[in-house]
Amino acid sequence: MVLLIQCEDQKGLVAKITAILLHHDYNIVSLREYVDQEKNRFYARFACQDNGTDFNAIAYNLKTVLPEGALLTINPNPEKNIAVLVTKEHHCLSDILIRHHFKTFQAQVVCVIGNHPDLKDLCDKFSVPFFFISTDKKTKEEFEQELIAKIDSYSVDYIVLAKFMRILSPVFVEKYPQKIINIHHSFLPAFIGANPYKRAFERGVKLIGATAHFVTNDLDEGPIIAQQTLPVNHAFTIQDTVNTGREIESAVLAKALNLIFQDKVFVYQNKTIVFDN
Amino acid sequence: MVLLIQCEDQKGLVAKITAILLHHDYNIVSLREYVDQEKNRFYARFACQDNGTDFNAIAYNLKTVLPEGALLTINPNPEKNIAVLVTKEHHCLSDILIRHHFKTFQAQVVCVIGNHPDLKDLCDKFSVPFFFISTDKKTKEEFEQELIAKIDSYSVDYIVLAKFMRILSPVFVEKYPQKIINIHHSFLPAFIGANPYKRAFERGVKLIGATAHFVTNDLDEGPIIAQQTLPVNHAFTIQDTVNTGREIESAVLAKALNLIFQDKVFVYQNKTIVFDN
Amino acid sequence: MVLLIQCEDQKGLVAKITAILLHHDYNIVSLREYVDQEKNRFYARFACQDNGTDFNAIAYNLKTVLPEGALLTINPNPEKNIAVLVTKEHHCLSDILIRHHFKTFQAQVVCVIGNHPDLKDLCDKFSVPFFFISTDKKTKEEFEQELIAKIDSYSVDYIVLAKFMRILSPVFVEKYPQKIINIHHSFLPAFIGANPYKRAFERGVKLIGATAHFVTNDLDEGPIIAQQTLPVNHAFTIQDTVNTGREIESAVLAKALNLIFQDKVFVYQNKTIVFDN
Amino acid sequence: MVLLIQCEDQKGLVAKITAILLHHDYNIVSLREYVDQEKNRFYARFACQDNGTDFNAIAYNLKTVLPEGALLTINPNPEKNIAVLVTKEHHCLSDILIRHHFKTFQAQVVCVIGNHPDLKDLCDKFSVPFFFISTDKKTKEEFEQELIAKIDSYSVDYIVLAKFMRILSPVFVEKYPQKIINIHHSFLPAFIGANPYKRAFERGVKLIGATAHFVTNDLDEGPIIAQQTLPVNHAFTIQDTVNTGREIESAVLAKALNLIFQDKVFVYQNKTIVFDN
Repeated sequence: MVLLIQCEDQKGLVAKITAILLHHDYNIVSLREYVDQEKNRFYARFACQDNGTDFNAIAYNLKTVLPEGALLTINPNPEKNIAVLVTKEHHCLSDILIRHHFKTFQAQVVCVIGNHPDLKDLCDKFSVPFFFISTDKKTKEEFEQELIAKIDSYSVDYIVLAKFMRILSPVFVEKYPQKIINIHHSFLPAFIGANPYKRAFERGVKLIGATAHFVTNDLDEGPIIAQQTLPVNHAFTIQDTVNTGREIESAVLAKALNLIFQDKVFVYQNKTIVFDN
Repeated sequence: MVLLIQCEDQKGLVAKITAILLHHDYNIVSLREYVDQEKNRFYARFACQDNGTDFNAIAYNLKTVLPEGALLTINPNPEKNIAVLVTKEHHCLSDILIRHHFKTFQAQVVCVIGNHPDLKDLCDKFSVPFFFISTDKKTKEEFEQELIAKIDSYSVDYIVLAKFMRILSPVFVEKYPQKIINIHHSFLPAFIGANPYKRAFERGVKLIGATAHFVTNDLDEGPIIAQQTLPVNHAFTIQDTVNTGREIESAVLAKALNLIFQDKVFVYQNKTIVFDN
Repeated sequence: MVLLIQCEDQKGLVAKITAILLHHDYNIVSLREYVDQEKNRFYARFACQDNGTDFNAIAYNLKTVLPEGALLTINPNPEKNIAVLVTKEHHCLSDILIRHHFKTFQAQVVCVIGNHPDLKDLCDKFSVPFFFISTDKKTKEEFEQELIAKIDSYSVDYIVLAKFMRILSPVFVEKYPQKIINIHHSFLPAFIGANPYKRAFERGVKLIGATAHFVTNDLDEGPIIAQQTLPVNHAFTIQDTVNTGREIESAVLAKALNLIFQDKVFVYQNKTIVFDN
Repeated sequence: MVLLIQCEDQKGLVAKITAILLHHDYNIVSLREYVDQEKNRFYARFACQDNGTDFNAIAYNLKTVLPEGALLTINPNPEKNIAVLVTKEHHCLSDILIRHHFKTFQAQVVCVIGNHPDLKDLCDKFSVPFFFISTDKKTKEEFEQELIAKIDSYSVDYIVLAKFMRILSPVFVEKYPQKIINIHHSFLPAFIGANPYKRAFERGVKLIGATAHFVTNDLDEGPIIAQQTLPVNHAFTIQDTVNTGREIESAVLAKALNLIFQDKVFVYQNKTIVFDN
């Protein structure tokens, strides 16, 4: 059983929470607590051995001791359902489908949606439903309404933008707060926006990066979950840079998704709190 | 205030401990707890805002709820005293003296002892006492008795072997359990013992490493605190390998010392539990 | 056009070689030369713009100026054919098949051979021939003769052991000198042989590694091509360690294969010379 | 002997150059050549065993075969002289002084100049001349004229800005083209300008970086020599971020300086070509 709590900080919170867990006969196997003193904000994650207790009873008791407005999650879906949005590039989707197929993710890919049909064949190989939703002759709103209808026809915990090359509207983004994860092909905040590899090449950087982040309405400005860099050098063409970048795009996205699937990521304002080990 | 507890695991430990902290009006700013389920062992680190409470009272109350044999440390010396043992190589000592001088370590170097006189000049620059204890015409026991006498003339929390090229006897090691830290110039357990760089060169490895560990009576087999690797290639001579290795030896030793000085390292049997962030 | 030369060192080799390239009107785009002075051994890689010259003429002329015993390769197969040997673990094979399918390797997977049938389904998805060769009721020699017959029914440049959990006999290994690449799941020479992750876990290391190397008759002692490490910590179970290790096994094997496919790796005695950028 | 050539590319350059080296009886130990095909630019570095030949004769002969405008350097000063400019932070200077003192750099620190007096004491320890040049009651021009007078009173190969917190004027910068090296405390081009750590903290990045680059008149936009990143997390205060950043600032600056001191760095337009192994 995993218990996540985010709230205003108060003296005694851990004592009160753990007293309730003890009352319900739980043994805590792993506990991380962090207080952001500047913002007076409390974050905690308790992992306990399962013992069959009714979660409603625990939640009821916890609410009596937590400050108003506390965000409380008890045993979130241990296997998340994800929808993956793609355009034409295969590398992140390939990585996700392999993990899905061999069950090495704590997640199920319930569907893949492309604004191009290119990756249908790949999804077919793994018997994952692929839907081509064209943007042709549609307003952005119409296109996104189709997306939403398709996504909402499933029970989806997270929407993963695996090299989905369209900017989503505020309406879409606000419908799924803290539920949309994007992989950006640069070390944010360097090279926000289009063509980051071309710009990295022109700048002559010696490292390139990739950033997985939650999507908000500020382009490439959402809370960062994970980042990684890899060396490049003068002999790299733009295409070499792109190819090298793809290696870490897949890796960083997989790392961020694993953290999220294991309920180790909190979001507050524009930052994440990641209890990664 | 920092509180460290290591003991046999029991249900309710965190609840009982935090109830006592609350009773003494402490606010927990950061909390890490980990249970090794295989060994049924509980480790926890509580960082609280100071409030002037008498630590003896807290210790007394905590002992009433902790299992027998619990290791309890309340607010260990926030600035450790260290003695540094060296031979001829300067790089780790230089790094430590600079950090000491500019107060970027939470530690004071109370003395440096060399079995060669070479590094006296460096210590003089930073007004740190250096003692040359020769091994000439002495048995190992005599030599170590002189070491012990010198070390014990100070109040020393940790003994740092900063490229000290002598193997210490069981008598010495057992006198300072979990208090002696060594930097070994390889990625343990590869290349245990002498000449690791030469052997790494001959093997044609593509990475070299360094390992900081507590010293026990099994040569290079003590609990590992930190490790790091760095790329090398075919064009490296043995000397290039040695020079490159020195860069990470200093860095890994500094990292391990910082973790220890901040009371983030537990030791049990032959492993460390490191609460590094 | 790529030209690879390995031979005893002599004064004037580059001058003589490049004079011949100039004679054939080649422009050198990238050149790496390295002399191992200790062994008096010369290694060079010339990448030139193609111009349609007859390679036999170039080879003929080069041989007149190179020392006896020189190893000369002109424009090796720019797309290698590989056979992949597997047992049950999918992760390295998955990575290779995806790269094969999307043509991001300079190589074709001509066949996959398993000593268990588990990965047939995965190969089928990508229309890559899979052959199950059981070891049941066969001597090692009989088993390997079947392997050899299957491999030799294709034109194969390299044999990739992608988590193939059988030790190959000297007869097999000597048949394919410098043509068999293995991924070992540890940072060699630490944890040679079986169960490296279990032993890494028990030793309490803070980094785990993976090593891609050519196979020779000394177990896990062949020339190392690439190595990588990744952090682990006290909270990792053996299974966590295995899972984390798989991430770098795929990555290191792919890195080594890319270097080999781009003709950037020389082998001499028990070391590689890698011109990696 | 090291020979560096940068020029317009032409067919046959390596053949012509190496014929001349052979004529002068040189054996090439290590050779790197790279052609930027887009810009038609040739870069080469030849390392040869010394044999006492008159360098003027070699230069004379080489000039007869190289394109007009070729940049030719024969055996540049194997031990560079550097002037170090500082403000108040000690960490990069400390690292440089230790390397200077123990002769692990191929460079001599001929003087240190501070616009604050804080680091005089440190320089005194290592018997390196320190000059305090105040900016008080001076125009930028007057201040820089004093700097220039002091620097030019020595024979200086490179000027190292080791956390020198003043922006230099175009007049100063243009006087020392490709001779001024700066360490910037971010992963450029992220966080150009002031307070990069504060901005990194506010953005919630998961890695911080440092960049060593040549100084040009575009602030923080000069050719990048080396970059490195290090993980940070939610629990880092701004001060923690600053402290962590300092570890890589020293390391990246040392790495860049080593490359430069070994004559492995070419500059063209706004990029470097680094032959780093």
